[in-house]
Amino acid sequence: MVQSCTTLRTISAVTMRDLAVKLCSILFLLSTLSVFSAEASFKPNEPCKHLVLYYHDTLFNGTDVANATSAAVTDPTKLGNFKFGKLVVFDDPMTKDSHLLSPPAARAQGFYFYDMKTTYSAWFAFTLIFNSTKQKGTLNIMGADLMTEETRDFSVVGGTGDFFMARGIATIRTDTVQGASYFRLKMDIKLYECY
Amino acid sequence: MVQSCTTLRTISAVTMRDLAVKLCSILFLLSTLSVFSAEASFKPNEPCKHLVLYYHDTLFNGTDVANATSAAVTDPTKLGNFKFGKLVVFDDPMTKDSHLLSPPAARAQGFYFYDMKTTYSAWFAFTLIFNSTKQKGTLNIMGADLMTEETRDFSVVGGTGDFFMARGIATIRTDTVQGASYFRLKMDIKLYECY
Amino acid sequence: MVQSCTTLRTISAVTMRDLAVKLCSILFLLSTLSVFSAEASFKPNEPCKHLVLYYHDTLFNGTDVANATSAAVTDPTKLGNFKFGKLVVFDDPMTKDSHLLSPPAARAQGFYFYDMKTTYSAWFAFTLIFNSTKQKGTLNIMGADLMTEETRDFSVVGGTGDFFMARGIATIRTDTVQGASYFRLKMDIKLYECY
Repeated sequence: MVQSCTTLRTISAVTMRDLAVKLCSILFLLSTLSVFSAEASFKPNEPCKHLVLYYHDTLFNGTDVANATSAAVTDPTKLGNFKFGKLVVFDDPMTKDSHLLSPPAARAQGFYFYDMKTTYSAWFAFTLIFNSTKQKGTLNIMGADLMTEETRDFSVVGGTGDFFMARGIATIRTDTVQGASYFRLKMDIKLYECY
Repeated sequence: MVQSCTTLRTISAVTMRDLAVKLCSILFLLSTLSVFSAEASFKPNEPCKHLVLYYHDTLFNGTDVANATSAAVTDPTKLGNFKFGKLVVFDDPMTKDSHLLSPPAARAQGFYFYDMKTTYSAWFAFTLIFNSTKQKGTLNIMGADLMTEETRDFSVVGGTGDFFMARGIATIRTDTVQGASYFRLKMDIKLYECY
Repeated sequence: MVQSCTTLRTISAVTMRDLAVKLCSILFLLSTLSVFSAEASFKPNEPCKHLVLYYHDTLFNGTDVANATSAAVTDPTKLGNFKFGKLVVFDDPMTKDSHLLSPPAARAQGFYFYDMKTTYSAWFAFTLIFNSTKQKGTLNIMGADLMTEETRDFSVVGGTGDFFMARGIATIRTDTVQGASYFRLKMDIKLYECY
């Protein structure tokens, strides 16, 4: 009996150790999974939404009301020769390809102003407004447009509607500049926080 | 002995399987709970704070210094007939009911400008400042005020003090408009990220 | 046999109860750890990054192009006697100590405007631009500068580059004011969300 007990204890102990190891492995896996899941929602590497849109700014020259979509509301100051302080309000179309006359996928409403005395550079704050059967809502964006850099990053600081509470980065690149009357930016918008 | 061993193994195995199932259930519950908790703090359905306030904008006409709480700082441009580019700076009272003369629960300091050529529409950025025994702190808000929509959503992009690091949505509705001199917005502020 | 079985069942049951208790403790610990980890990344008490920088604003007087780093783009309105509505665009140096001529650690590009009729008070929105071998990227900041308070809190609403997706609080304190031509703010920036 003692022997059988010992044997059984041993058997049972071994089996239980196995079980314990297995359970611990499952536990560890599950807990790491849940930690990763928590971190994944907070520290994602991949955007949860990705949009590429072209921003077209056609500056009002005083007469082209039909075509213009932005207008200067302050004069440039005399601080340097790069329009320092010139503030422009815009309601600009955003298209999926680079053609100005393509059907707008969104509108960009907001403002920019020039803010350097040694080169052209600007600061932007605006809202992208989506109002199609596919997407309804807004993205709110702000940041420095360091025109001397090939690409610049704005912050997507909030969103509404289909973009409820979104955050991310909008990387812009100058696509073309036609004097003072028209310029086009390629905007690569990556959202890293989506609800 | 062999038989008793087998019996015991079976008994022990059954009991352990039960235990394993129970433990696994507990594990699963706990891990899902922790995952849900992580997601709950990131993807809430219900606001963690809810405020309803009325915004009163009394535009300076050049003489009513005592009553006015906002003033135009740029002239409208000639791009359309809807004050495109007119920029207004404000330090407006926020009240809990719709009465202009109720004791302010907060102040809204910031600016808006008109930005459409075909209709009235504006863009806002401002700070709500709370400074009472009940609440001290600020909420920073920005977004497009698409006046043709019955309700519009702004983004609450940050907060300080009692609203430390808050984020959310401020839904506005035009409550009344009295010519160019006064308008009132009902502002329904739902915070979805609170610390 | 019956007796041995009972004994064994008892032994095995006791051992298993111990094991279950231990496993449950581990489970509980792990699950709380994972919950804490999730909450820690969402509700931190300590900043994940801390910067102290001095902001120097030298306002253009119409002739000092070489020294000035900001310029008024609108005139103050007549709403009160505290420059209500005066809008200033800036590209200001940020230094690690309080000396204006120290090598800039960053630049602050953006704007402020005065917005109270009974005292000096302002509203700011700007981007801190870091471009050194040590740090590259931007922080986007906005908020009310209630000058009558000893310290004021702005919201850090987003970041790019080395400050990818950052959020936090920038606490400012007026360090010195020299008439209308120069003022310096000490800016204590604490980021609570870092990626």
